[in-house]
Amino acid sequence: MKIAVIPGDGIGKEVMEAALHVLKGLDLDPEFLYAEAGDECLERTGTALPDETIEIIGEADSTLFGAAGESAADVIVKLRREFDLFANLRPVKSLPGVPCLYPDLDFVIVRENTEDLYVGDEEFTADGAVARRVITRSASRRISRFAFEYAKREGWSRVTAVHKANVLKKTDGVFREEFYRVASDYPEMEAEDYYVDATAMYLITQPQEFQVLVTTNLFGDILSDEAAGLIGGLGLAPSANIGEKNAIFEPVHGSAPQIAGKNIANPTAMILTTTLMLKHLNKTQEAQKIQKALEKTLEEGLVTPDLGGSLGTMEMAAEIAKRI
Amino acid sequence: MKIAVIPGDGIGKEVMEAALHVLKGLDLDPEFLYAEAGDECLERTGTALPDETIEIIGEADSTLFGAAGESAADVIVKLRREFDLFANLRPVKSLPGVPCLYPDLDFVIVRENTEDLYVGDEEFTADGAVARRVITRSASRRISRFAFEYAKREGWSRVTAVHKANVLKKTDGVFREEFYRVASDYPEMEAEDYYVDATAMYLITQPQEFQVLVTTNLFGDILSDEAAGLIGGLGLAPSANIGEKNAIFEPVHGSAPQIAGKNIANPTAMILTTTLMLKHLNKTQEAQKIQKALEKTLEEGLVTPDLGGSLGTMEMAAEIAKRI
Ligand SMILES: CC(C)[C@H](C(=O)O)[C@@H](O)C(=O)O
Ligand SMILES: CC(C)[C@H](C(=O)O)[C@@H](O)C(=O)O
Repeated sequence: MKIAVIPGDGIGKEVMEAALHVLKGLDLDPEFLYAEAGDECLERTGTALPDETIEIIGEADSTLFGAAGESAADVIVKLRREFDLFANLRPVKSLPGVPCLYPDLDFVIVRENTEDLYVGDEEFTADGAVARRVITRSASRRISRFAFEYAKREGWSRVTAVHKANVLKKTDGVFREEFYRVASDYPEMEAEDYYVDATAMYLITQPQEFQVLVTTNLFGDILSDEAAGLIGGLGLAPSANIGEKNAIFEPVHGSAPQIAGKNIANPTAMILTTTLMLKHLNKTQEAQKIQKALEKTLEEGLVTPDLGGSLGTMEMAAEIAKRI
Repeated sequence: MKIAVIPGDGIGKEVMEAALHVLKGLDLDPEFLYAEAGDECLERTGTALPDETIEIIGEADSTLFGAAGESAADVIVKLRREFDLFANLRPVKSLPGVPCLYPDLDFVIVRENTEDLYVGDEEFTADGAVARRVITRSASRRISRFAFEYAKREGWSRVTAVHKANVLKKTDGVFREEFYRVASDYPEMEAEDYYVDATAMYLITQPQEFQVLVTTNLFGDILSDEAAGLIGGLGLAPSANIGEKNAIFEPVHGSAPQIAGKNIANPTAMILTTTLMLKHLNKTQEAQKIQKALEKTLEEGLVTPDLGGSLGTMEMAAEIAKRI
């Protein structure tokens, strides 16, 4: 098993080291292919995303990505498009022992990952700038199908499409239409749709109602950060970028320069991210081993300062590894 | 004083009746100019927004708007652009006696109200659709200045711009640039900026930090609904659409067809909306009278079912009017 490892910038490097330490506690013995990307790489090599990194990702069975700094958009958005990683899976699951608003949440946001305002088609005009928001039928269908398949596999019974079709009548009209077209192939599943603004409120007033949410790229970006807030913050939110051939796994958080280098970053999101990767590679048992060890560690309060503990990033990882 | 009154559809009509009942409890004796808009109007007249309604708004000193149904975008978005109501003011203030996540919030979202993806410039393409996101320097400047002036007048010390300039480098680049340009005219004010996704999370994890947020149209739409969730839901969130010459005041909520006709809609948002109008018309004392009467009523639990009470919409309004 070949795993590309891109620590990136800031706390990306620290949480990656922590996650690899935990991963090494399993009987898997993967081959790690290290690669560079991000601000430091840009500084040193003149590009935030070297061709070599793209090659290494292409060779690997899966990729773990830490975080990139200012150049994040030029790295991760490019990689998502380069490898056609069309589905961004963002599970929102409360963890034991973590202080948060809702200790009982369990839902998933499935974010379309290749188009919308992320196509990078912008231009300056006489009095400002214009960006193009592209929504295609094929991408809307593909992400909807992914959401229903995922829901089916994971035992959910409802998929909720999120859009703004009252204002974006054509673009989100297309998205909603294709969503319901795909839904008709899953008569055993409930299909519903909400406006993105209403959803942003419901996430706070009735988040327990949600199971699988599927939405366009930018709405998925916003709603998944909001949802991370519900379960205690970005330090706890993992994500997977999944395509037909490749997959890149990254925490939802960024490089957090304010806390980088202090050994206080919470490695939880990155460790949960590795469990998503293991599941994707059909190593379900291994994923569960890490998940359980992590939960024990959290319950025992052996955590980083953001969760009220006094451990460093690597010390917390060591406690988790011990419990595998 | 001439006030145009557009009840609209569904609970719009009910909360408007309630709010006018409270308003009539003051010694103001305004002249109410009734006008039509929305789904029912569309059904009856063939247009959701008749020219006559636009004329009446033009004649009035201010307009109260209830809610429109499916045609909301064709009514309110058009009105915002027609009258160049460039600033959408959405105060987020916890109310006494209302069960909510944060009983101590007090901040304001200033939403640009005329451009962004709301320009309605969409077209179908071979494989889907494309929408144009327009951000101009002039509108960005104007809304930023409005935010700083508002902050100054209301005694705030910090204005936070919200954008996604890491991905929307040109459009939100323009917005951020103009924000800081305007900020330099207010050296006594703190100016900062956040990404919209981070803001969606901070609204949950540290909402007390915010004072005045200023953002583009669609982000303002999403974040203000999210913020309404923090203080107990859309039944409590007022808003003001403000231009150079005209202003339209409306609750953030919609026509809520599921609960319409049952006399259970919470009139609070619409009543708070009238206080925003009164303040705008320099009737500050009158606004405070209503605010205090409303707060007393809420504290006494004389409320609609959504807040755990047993009063109807009009009964709650009657209790408020009694306490003026
Ligand atoms: C860093 C940024 C470009 C990225 C995004 O907007 O997708 C991030 O916020 C995310 O959610 O992965
Ligand atoms: C009804 C809809 C068009 C409107 C908007 O998107 O602006 C509403 O959500 C609002 O916030 O006023």
